[in-house]
Order: sequence, then structure tokens, then C-alpha cells
Amino acid sequence: MKDLFGSPGQVSGLLLRIGQCLFASASIGVMASASGFSTTTAFWYTHTHTHTHTHTHSLSLSLCIFSVAIIPDVTSVLSLAAACSATGVVILLSRDTNFCRVEKQLACSTFKISVALAFVSWFLLAISSFVMFWLLASV
Amino acid sequence: MKDLFGSPGQVSGLLLRIGQCLFASASIGVMASASGFSTTTAFWYTHTHTHTHTHTHSLSLSLCIFSVAIIPDVTSVLSLAAACSATGVVILLSRDTNFCRVEKQLACSTFKISVALAFVSWFLLAISSFVMFWLLASV
Repeated sequence: MKDLFGSPGQVSGLLLRIGQCLFASASIGVMASASGFSTTTAFWYTHTHTHTHTHTHSLSLSLCIFSVAIIPDVTSVLSLAAACSATGVVILLSRDTNFCRVEKQLACSTFKISVALAFVSWFLLAISSFVMFWLLASV
Repeated sequence: MKDLFGSPGQVSGLLLRIGQCLFASASIGVMASASGFSTTTAFWYTHTHTHTHTHTHSLSLSLCIFSVAIIPDVTSVLSLAAACSATGVVILLSRDTNFCRVEKQLACSTFKISVALAFVSWFLLAISSFVMFWLLASV
């Protein structure tokens, strides 16, 4: 196996996984603190997917099980899908319409922070997925 | 270069590119027929990105220029982002709230069809991107 940045067994790989886990956990926590997030499918999906992903994927991958690692890495596509769908809704509520200004009970700032954290988590996951895929193709 | 399904120079590769172009064009046409789509950022972004992508990417790639092909293939991530952000908004309007039932002037069915077509286009593009990336990694 080539020694690429972020590959399993490398310190950089472990740091990437820890970073994914931390940012995903922060995104989950911030989203959960916003009341009524579960009534919007995009927010609920982002929260649920990130939650599932964090607990089943990032920590187990830090144990460097290569054969297991490549399968859940495919879910980085779902992470991006979740973050983007939530972003579409946040932009609709805060910029395209006046809902965030009119409906004061909407926790728009909280949603924005949670989505931003989900994007950072996805970016770190994308690096790991890229490296894993590269390793798999070059074997 | 390995002879993989969908690789440049293969009939399957050309068919994939033609499929991407057709579905993306259909998505653009359907979205453009929905009045007021440009006031929603997610719909506007989906339309603009798909439009740009179709004209600059899919057709030029069918000419089998490998060195040029790998760069725009990265934009498949942006295509997914566009489709997902629009999906988030469509689900918000049609399922999470009653906007589609109350606001009859909203062309919800048209938005749904356009987003579905964008997803099909992205799926075909993802196959091409996957193959191109695999070829690049295994060179």
C-alpha cells in the first residue's frame, strides 16, 4: 500500500478521521439544539445521516481496517447530499424569502452553523474517500 | 489506457456523455418553463450549473480529449450539490409545508420533474467521473 497523505495507518489518516468525527459531532449537537429541526426533512436528514455516520464510520475507520473502510467511504456522497439539501433550505429561508426575519422562532443562525460544520466534516471525509479510492484503484 | 466501460473512445463512453447531455438539457428546459424559478437560489443554481455544464463539458468530452476530460469531471460534485439543494427546497415546499397546495402559482410538479432529470444526468456523469478517476489512478 502506498504511503499517501491520509491513508490508513498514517497519523494524517487518523487526524482526518478524528476531525470528521469532531466536526460531525459538533454539527449534530448544534442542529439538535435548534428546536423544530426535525419538522424539516432536509435538516432531519442531515442530522440523522451525520449522526449515523459518526458512530458507525469515523471511529471504526480510525482502527485502520482497510477492507471495511472503503465501503462506508462511499457514503461521503450521502454526506454531501445531506449538507447541500440543508443548505438549499437555509438559503431559501434566510435569503430568498423573509422567513428568518418574520418567523423569529426559527433558529436560522443555528441551522447555518450546523450546516457549515457538516460541510467541514464532509470536506475532511472527501479527502479520506479520495485517498482510499486512489489506493484501491492503484493496487 | 484500460478498456473500461464508459472510458473515452468507447461507444459506452459516448453514450454516457450523450445521456448526460440529453437529461441535463431536459432538466434545463423543464426548469426554465417554470415561472419564477430564478427567485429561488437552489433552483437558479441547479439551472445555471446544469446549463453551463452541458454546453462546456458533455459535448466536448464526447470528442475524447482525455487530458481535458478529467478536470471538468470533478464538477460532478457540483452537479450533485445543485440537485440536492433543489431537492431540499422541493421537499420543504411540497411535504414539510403546505406551500404547494396553498400557493397554486408555484410550479411544484415542474420543479420535481426538473430535479429528477438533473439527478439522472448526475448519475450518468458520476459513472463517467468514476471511470475517468479510476483510469487516472491506475495509469
